Amino acid sequence: MKAAALLGGPKANWPQNLKEKLASYDLKFGVDRGSLLLSELGIKPDVAVGDFDSLRSAELAQIEKVVSDIRYSNPIKDFTDTELMLRAALLDYNVSSLAIYGFSGGRIDHFLSNMLMLLDKQVSTWASKVKLIDRQNLITYLLPGKNTLQPLREYQYFAVYCLTKTKKLSIKGARYDLQDYSTEKPRIFASNEFKNNSPCQISFKQGQVMIIYSKDIDRYLNA
Amino acid sequence: MKAAALLGGPKANWPQNLKEKLASYDLKFGVDRGSLLLSELGIKPDVAVGDFDSLRSAELAQIEKVVSDIRYSNPIKDFTDTELMLRAALLDYNVSSLAIYGFSGGRIDHFLSNMLMLLDKQVSTWASKVKLIDRQNLITYLLPGKNTLQPLREYQYFAVYCLTKTKKLSIKGARYDLQDYSTEKPRIFASNEFKNNSPCQISFKQGQVMIIYSKDIDRYLNA
Repeated sequence: MKAAALLGGPKANWPQNLKEKLASYDLKFGVDRGSLLLSELGIKPDVAVGDFDSLRSAELAQIEKVVSDIRYSNPIKDFTDTELMLRAALLDYNVSSLAIYGFSGGRIDHFLSNMLMLLDKQVSTWASKVKLIDRQNLITYLLPGKNTLQPLREYQYFAVYCLTKTKKLSIKGARYDLQDYSTEKPRIFASNEFKNNSPCQISFKQGQVMIIYSKDIDRYLNA
Repeated sequence: MKAAALLGGPKANWPQNLKEKLASYDLKFGVDRGSLLLSELGIKPDVAVGDFDSLRSAELAQIEKVVSDIRYSNPIKDFTDTELMLRAALLDYNVSSLAIYGFSGGRIDHFLSNMLMLLDKQVSTWASKVKLIDRQNLITYLLPGKNTLQPLREYQYFAVYCLTKTKKLSIKGARYDLQDYSTEKPRIFASNEFKNNSPCQISFKQGQVMIIYSKDIDRYLNA
């Protein structure tokens, strides 16, 4: 079962045709204001998670009328709303993959929290099931060992981001290769490219590594 | 001498009244497409840095006509364009502070590169002179030791982001305090608030800590 979640980030950062993209998933999660945004797109959230404190009472009532699984979070809490959604999706609904939209372009503390949540020990084993997608970027996570990275037609670049202490990171078969790189601090290798549109190999012994596929946007559309 | 720099991120993420804000600085740096964006705002860049490969030749010619200090970067390089600008500002121009705009809302690998550049040993000693400002966020860096964090009227929240291994982080006098927290991995404490609009104390023994002031934006403006 493939799932998608919509968070409350600004629409300006959504990918193109988000409504059509969302319609193709088996299960839709709304996170806080994302539940309302789904409804506004004409998509019924299957699950809504949040404290909903940014919604007007009539808007919340509307969500409560149509959504069968609502999970109210406590504003002062151990888990963020997005973490609660992630746990619901992966533990309770046992989804095979989860695409997260609406995560960028707004509060940077929210973005960084969401980026780091997959460092959590329990959650990190699921990391390879999760993607974050916005207008210019697609983020995935890799587990230690050997990984094959596939080119994605829409994106010209990829970056390799060592979130934590990382041992023996190698990139093979890309435009810029790397051999047995280790670091104590976070480090990013940005603007790499696939060679001849072929997959490349990314391996590391220890650490948590995020891949950011990205593209430039024509500046005349970029207002 | 107070300086500002404009990077090439989307205008949708600029703070309000950026033109008026920029006009108040003594020295303006344009980074790559940011040089063109400054010109379009009617502001002459004092310094332009970049490979300018996203500009049309007529646009670059216009920049070259009006800007007296242009620094051409090599697309395959050790330093990113933003790092070159940072070095020019802090080493060559010896600015007392540097406000960076246009850093968010576009490619996430660019954002993360810019966020991490202040981890560099040489650069990190300057980190407290640098601010990154967009529509909803203001980012500053702290050095180890005792720091007083001032409330800023425009922002309701602040987050404390441990970029690296951090020892004995304490927050005192805020809504959510913290005592002697240590971590091996990056960690963020988001959505904290000032108490009675009073400063709070943030101290740590070792590590690199970023502060993100942030605010929510009314969702009806948030399209």
